[in-house]
Amino acid sequence: MRKARVFFQLSGREAEVPLGCTVLEAAWRAGEPVDSPCGGRGKCGKCRVRVKGDAAPATPRELEKLTAGEMGRGWRLACQAEAAGDVSVRTPARVSGGESGTPRSLLRARGIKPAPRVEKTFLKLRAPSLRSQKSDLERVIEALGGGDGMEVSLDVMKTLPGALRAGGFGVTAVTCGGRLAAVEPGDTTPVLAGAAVDVGTTTLSVSVYDLRTGDMIGGRTAINPQERYGADVASRIFFAAEREGGLETLRKIVVDALNGMLNGAARDGGVDPGGIYEVVAVGNPTMMHLLGGVSPENIAAAPYVPAFSGALDVPARDVGLEVSPGARIRVPPAVSAYVGADTIGAVLAAGIGRGGECELLVDMGTNAEIVLSGRGGMAACSAAAGPALEGAQISCGTRAKPGAVQHVFLDAGALRYATIGGLAPSGLCGSALMDAMAELRLAGAIDGGGRLDPARLRGEYAFLKRNFVREKGGGERFALRAGSEGVFLTQGDVRQFQLAKSAIITGIQALLKKERVRAREIGRIYLAGLLGSSLRAESAIEAGVLPDVDAEGVKYVGNAALDGAAMCLLSERAWRRAVDTAGKMKCLELSGWRGFQELFVKNLEFPPYRVR
Amino acid sequence: MRKARVFFQLSGREAEVPLGCTVLEAAWRAGEPVDSPCGGRGKCGKCRVRVKGDAAPATPRELEKLTAGEMGRGWRLACQAEAAGDVSVRTPARVSGGESGTPRSLLRARGIKPAPRVEKTFLKLRAPSLRSQKSDLERVIEALGGGDGMEVSLDVMKTLPGALRAGGFGVTAVTCGGRLAAVEPGDTTPVLAGAAVDVGTTTLSVSVYDLRTGDMIGGRTAINPQERYGADVASRIFFAAEREGGLETLRKIVVDALNGMLNGAARDGGVDPGGIYEVVAVGNPTMMHLLGGVSPENIAAAPYVPAFSGALDVPARDVGLEVSPGARIRVPPAVSAYVGADTIGAVLAAGIGRGGECELLVDMGTNAEIVLSGRGGMAACSAAAGPALEGAQISCGTRAKPGAVQHVFLDAGALRYATIGGLAPSGLCGSALMDAMAELRLAGAIDGGGRLDPARLRGEYAFLKRNFVREKGGGERFALRAGSEGVFLTQGDVRQFQLAKSAIITGIQALLKKERVRAREIGRIYLAGLLGSSLRAESAIEAGVLPDVDAEGVKYVGNAALDGAAMCLLSERAWRRAVDTAGKMKCLELSGWRGFQELFVKNLEFPPYRVR
Repeated sequence: MRKARVFFQLSGREAEVPLGCTVLEAAWRAGEPVDSPCGGRGKCGKCRVRVKGDAAPATPRELEKLTAGEMGRGWRLACQAEAAGDVSVRTPARVSGGESGTPRSLLRARGIKPAPRVEKTFLKLRAPSLRSQKSDLERVIEALGGGDGMEVSLDVMKTLPGALRAGGFGVTAVTCGGRLAAVEPGDTTPVLAGAAVDVGTTTLSVSVYDLRTGDMIGGRTAINPQERYGADVASRIFFAAEREGGLETLRKIVVDALNGMLNGAARDGGVDPGGIYEVVAVGNPTMMHLLGGVSPENIAAAPYVPAFSGALDVPARDVGLEVSPGARIRVPPAVSAYVGADTIGAVLAAGIGRGGECELLVDMGTNAEIVLSGRGGMAACSAAAGPALEGAQISCGTRAKPGAVQHVFLDAGALRYATIGGLAPSGLCGSALMDAMAELRLAGAIDGGGRLDPARLRGEYAFLKRNFVREKGGGERFALRAGSEGVFLTQGDVRQFQLAKSAIITGIQALLKKERVRAREIGRIYLAGLLGSSLRAESAIEAGVLPDVDAEGVKYVGNAALDGAAMCLLSERAWRRAVDTAGKMKCLELSGWRGFQELFVKNLEFPPYRVR
Repeated sequence: MRKARVFFQLSGREAEVPLGCTVLEAAWRAGEPVDSPCGGRGKCGKCRVRVKGDAAPATPRELEKLTAGEMGRGWRLACQAEAAGDVSVRTPARVSGGESGTPRSLLRARGIKPAPRVEKTFLKLRAPSLRSQKSDLERVIEALGGGDGMEVSLDVMKTLPGALRAGGFGVTAVTCGGRLAAVEPGDTTPVLAGAAVDVGTTTLSVSVYDLRTGDMIGGRTAINPQERYGADVASRIFFAAEREGGLETLRKIVVDALNGMLNGAARDGGVDPGGIYEVVAVGNPTMMHLLGGVSPENIAAAPYVPAFSGALDVPARDVGLEVSPGARIRVPPAVSAYVGADTIGAVLAAGIGRGGECELLVDMGTNAEIVLSGRGGMAACSAAAGPALEGAQISCGTRAKPGAVQHVFLDAGALRYATIGGLAPSGLCGSALMDAMAELRLAGAIDGGGRLDPARLRGEYAFLKRNFVREKGGGERFALRAGSEGVFLTQGDVRQFQLAKSAIITGIQALLKKERVRAREIGRIYLAGLLGSSLRAESAIEAGVLPDVDAEGVKYVGNAALDGAAMCLLSERAWRRAVDTAGKMKCLELSGWRGFQELFVKNLEFPPYRVR
């Protein structure tokens, strides 16, 4: 299959996609936030982007929504513009809204000066003589104006005699907080890189930044190779705790993968990985434990206790990262065993809790992390949604990959769907499942209790009868294409979805209750993470996953966890804000919350359908 | 050869010696300070010790010096009492003098409370529950009453889940400054050991202490295995700098040796080496560089610049020491490339510079370190004495080992000598060389310029003529035993000695001049180190190695460097005093000092002989 490379200029993100894939689909895959309230149907005209390169000609929908002048300047609709080869995409600057953008622009929008912890100083030292016999180290520290407190590792000390003399006593000192992180011969101040790392249960992301300018200079995304030892957090913990050498296996495989990604991303930016002097990593607590080689075994069962939850700040080489020998790796604090550094990063990037408005942040996945910013500060919980939204335990479920159905919608008397890359449909991913639930509810084919019943189809949707097949054991099966055995949904799939959606909405409602906030007070909902990227807000609301708010108030903020990590990397003040946020955040343990069971059972029901 | 073990009760030092070896000789070998102003001749009666175990019967000299009552209580003269098997020796308490004793008694004598940096606290933690989901680390830190600042390594974090649960949430926290060094299941407070290490160019010494009581619980002494790559500092530096992998070879061999010694010493004390939570090491700057794997190459040539000279405080595992994973190793600061942590340790242990009196500390060796405490604070220098005093470059020179002649003296119209272990003489060690120079000067056989000439023997020493043999190339040779070819001295040996003694006395005089102190103002001279242990003060003064002071004012302080390290280990205040001392100490670089050459040439001359 021939591929096209879709590059997003402002963020540096990119995706390799099959030819014919739309820019919007590429954006979803790259984690690039693009507004698309209608879910890619070409209806709202809000997914405007400027495209350069090898794109297919404008579609009729675009001719309708865009002026000739706009088209002349390269404007397209992301949901319509297909990549016929490599393209470069410029998304509209969205900083004004304050809720998304590059980490640098996010910092700027909040008045935080980019000032990373790591600094480089070129020092022209006086050469030693019998009248100046100071040691190499004293010479450097004195030139830095630093006192006694400077901490120096043996590794750095080993490099001193060589570095000072190779550079003719012109050296570059790298300091990091109160530490002398490196001393390099000559003037190396032009190279000062750092890396933001998101260790997702499913996906690893690495962004390398030039710390002097705040520019992202390279990035990599890959499947977390731990996946082969279990798809979700629970099975990874089991593997780590119960298998001989399991913890070390999981640790090593992810560190090796990250090293490859760091190397690639740095080299793309023209920097040796040894030029990376600081790493900020985020991930859920289990991922962070595995990254550090710390057993997460007590996270799996009640009372769910991690080994550590405060901020981590250790030598990167202790973790095994192949970056500058003096580099450190930091992880923002976690709030509980399931609300971790990734959530703190996302809160930082989304900027919730700043305006005094009530806001929600939801990162859906096997565990959905939910943060409510209310009048009394922030509170978080983690809802065990199970893997249905990631395609598992659904008859034709699949991850978001080429051929996966990403959207399903009823349009002009027909059932339509869109697959990633425009390929033949191979399965339903989370967003399509949610769409299908919403649309079948609308059509009347799923009742409030979740029963799948074509007999109850509302008049104008009677044509959907052709998509139903009676199963052998009784019950109905809903096929995406009438008369086709290909992709379908069963009654069991609906039940799985109900469990997932009830977990999430119950988590949200529990937080609202706990914080005494009414659903209608919610001013905005931020969706973070990969699943959020392709979600149609209306479907999520109609299927009962999100509370009944104005769909326009739902914003996708991309891989906000990674953006938050990058903000911490670029600004010490942002890091302190992250630490501070975690320290103040309340945490609601759902399994220990009295009203949980009752509310969960009630939420298995679908909300009443709305007339659109 | 059958061996006897001589154990010194108060210090824990011990030596394995050939049967028939005197207790004084064993003390010299173990580095145990025993007063012996007459150099072991049985004349002064000052080397009284109490001996238990398998000692040979009292000698006539002892019957003369000791009362029957004293002998009944076990008192012997150390220079007369021979080990016929294993013996245990109790040296008189010498704390009153303030200048020697065990590290603990030295601290006590100076009013410094033993309070090591490492502490253990047993914590009875509340078990986690859904109402108390704090992470393991938070739980420990909170119980310690510690705030945010506590530093924790990944290694310690890895042990947390296991430790807390193995101990039923009863754990022992080990803290070291602001660090959490370890968390152990159950109550392990009874085990809290630390190690003092002296990395000598020639000899390695390790003492393991119970940090709760200040008791030494085990010790080991061994030859520095780096010796095979060069006897002195200069040749080690050459090997490290010029040979492929030389630095790593030297590093590894000494670390391996120290690990063996730490293990042995700890186990002797009933402790696993993992129960050692802190190490304080001393040694000259080259040894400390090699221990840390830091290249000492720039120490060898002018302007003599070490890579580091400040205090070192790094994880012990970074050095490769197999002690507690959270343990740290500290090295007191150095003053220059040749005046190092060992000198600072010796100054601390000897306690010079406290009374306002002018005092000298001299540690003789290939490089002699000299510290003068004058009215204007302390000043130090290092004198390149060369290896003559360690037996090298002397025709029949040898190290202090069984059979080595340790003392030579003229007594009752005869030339007598004493060998280590009473064996047949195999060579002359440094103290014997110094004795021989002093006695031959006294007898008139060496003139002021150092010419060896039997024709000038004074009347009462004419019997020594039999010991002289005319050499083939002219010149005279002085044989220890008349008519024997065995152990002898040549004119060349005298010249080598002159170079060595001139270097040392010139260093002392340079410091005196620089600090405007007259030789007669010196109240006391402390001799530290192995060579000092067997030195006869009179010989050192008469041969011109030490300035002309009252020999009673010369005190041997044993392995003061090691004792100083132990003091730092036992008391954080002592450590700070060591750091402070180094910071204030002036350093005189002899090679850069104007008057050096002139004074050095002048000091090649012997001082006028004194009538005894």
